[in-house]
Amino acid sequence: MTGNPAFIGGDWGTSRLRLFLCDDAGAVLARAEGPGAAAGNCHETFAQLTAQWDAKLPAILCGMVGSTIGWREVPYLACPSKAGTIAGAMLRFESDGRTIFIVPGLSCRNPVGTPDVMRGEETQILGALRLQPALARDRQLICLPGTHTKWAEVADGAVMGFQTALSGELFDLLARDSVLARDSGPVAADSAAFRQGLDLAREHHTAGLLHLLFSTRARQVTGEMAKVDAASYLSGLVIGADVNAARALFSADSVTLICSPALVALYGRALAHYGLQSAAIDGDQAALAGLAHIYSELKP
Amino acid sequence: MTGNPAFIGGDWGTSRLRLFLCDDAGAVLARAEGPGAAAGNCHETFAQLTAQWDAKLPAILCGMVGSTIGWREVPYLACPSKAGTIAGAMLRFESDGRTIFIVPGLSCRNPVGTPDVMRGEETQILGALRLQPALARDRQLICLPGTHTKWAEVADGAVMGFQTALSGELFDLLARDSVLARDSGPVAADSAAFRQGLDLAREHHTAGLLHLLFSTRARQVTGEMAKVDAASYLSGLVIGADVNAARALFSADSVTLICSPALVALYGRALAHYGLQSAAIDGDQAALAGLAHIYSELKP
Repeated sequence: MTGNPAFIGGDWGTSRLRLFLCDDAGAVLARAEGPGAAAGNCHETFAQLTAQWDAKLPAILCGMVGSTIGWREVPYLACPSKAGTIAGAMLRFESDGRTIFIVPGLSCRNPVGTPDVMRGEETQILGALRLQPALARDRQLICLPGTHTKWAEVADGAVMGFQTALSGELFDLLARDSVLARDSGPVAADSAAFRQGLDLAREHHTAGLLHLLFSTRARQVTGEMAKVDAASYLSGLVIGADVNAARALFSADSVTLICSPALVALYGRALAHYGLQSAAIDGDQAALAGLAHIYSELKP
Repeated sequence: MTGNPAFIGGDWGTSRLRLFLCDDAGAVLARAEGPGAAAGNCHETFAQLTAQWDAKLPAILCGMVGSTIGWREVPYLACPSKAGTIAGAMLRFESDGRTIFIVPGLSCRNPVGTPDVMRGEETQILGALRLQPALARDRQLICLPGTHTKWAEVADGAVMGFQTALSGELFDLLARDSVLARDSGPVAADSAAFRQGLDLAREHHTAGLLHLLFSTRARQVTGEMAKVDAASYLSGLVIGADVNAARALFSADSVTLICSPALVALYGRALAHYGLQSAAIDGDQAALAGLAHIYSELKP
């Protein structure tokens, strides 16, 4: 059961745009895909992809579309921020007769005391709060693993603050371009090598990742580890360092993951390995639910 | 005052070969340069570069020339190892009528409990012990900053053990290919940004580098830091994480640096910033002195 078209939702990241024609409750009636914000020409891309959709429907767009490389820059909104505050801070403009809203990213002073920013994840977090209303009750820790993993604290339906870890980008650089895992097979979340990396990361958390990484190579050179296992071990070290640092920065027994199934497999296992509870919400569903959440806040 | 040619010393790394015709005391009478071990053809390269030098002179070669990518593989020698032990474990063979010795690399179980290896640095450490005999008296911490920074403990003239940090390689990857320092100027050791990175690395040592790195970007995005300063700040974070971890792993008030002048500028400032004493020995001189040290151990 879906209703009439009510709004267009857009998840517009650096490398990909996904548009959804939605009814009033956020159910998807039609979809379109296009290039990410990094490709430029946002106005033309958007106009082409939405030409068939009623020009009276408003569009709500989140992600890098609101950055300096996007369509229009929207200033970051400082934490703590609830859905209503975020909706109220959207940039609104008209384009080809359609009203466009761009969701602001969030900024905060993070637990390590430095400025921190996100764009797009705030919408996924609002989606998670709508999909799992229990999340809005108490103080909860949410983890959005990715290129720049975000650890966000939510309480009373507001994003209180967050901390970014460079986990995904660092792993990708090391796996592809360093001496550590050149001849490795793919990362296997259920491998002994991944668990071994997790164990070392926990045991030597205070020594720090920088002094653990080279063991990926040294274990191969000395014959202690098969080359095929190097990426799994390296992934265990990086995700282990990420989770242990976050655990120290935010006191929490349980974590809600918002990400792809592949990342749920890795982070979910890492959290379980360290004795932490976790639940997972699909990242794409969270983004869509977040756009619907923000749309519902717009209505009088 | 130099004497007659007595031996050929060779510092043969991955990307560069330097050969020295030396007298009995290690003074350089002539030099030659060639491609590193990664280029292959070690036999031909060596034969061409030394054709003019008396075939009766032995050659002592250290570095990656003894690795699987080198001329002949020499097994790692386990720590602790003194100069005499290292000299005695050299691989010896004849090539075109000349006696060739290849110095073994060292291996150990490092302070974080993983296997660790070095090839070439052991010769620089032996050189440092010869250049500064005071180093051989007590337990001392030596740091050889580079692509794979080595922190080595020496006592009674022996290399007791060591720990590798991926500092140089990690910084290079992040500076060149990540989102962190794309539009930055070069690293300035005397900049406020470098010191700011050092401060954060110390203050949040237990949080870990992974959760500090993104601040390099966030400070730029929020206008707190000029883009030109990003590489200096990032260098402060990485070197700071390296030094603070090493300080926790090895208890030491002073460190002897063996490296290039550019790295002395960075690591020397970092150590001073944290209240540690340091002295520096030039990396090239240390390699040469180490080859002479090993040569002197060969003599009956």
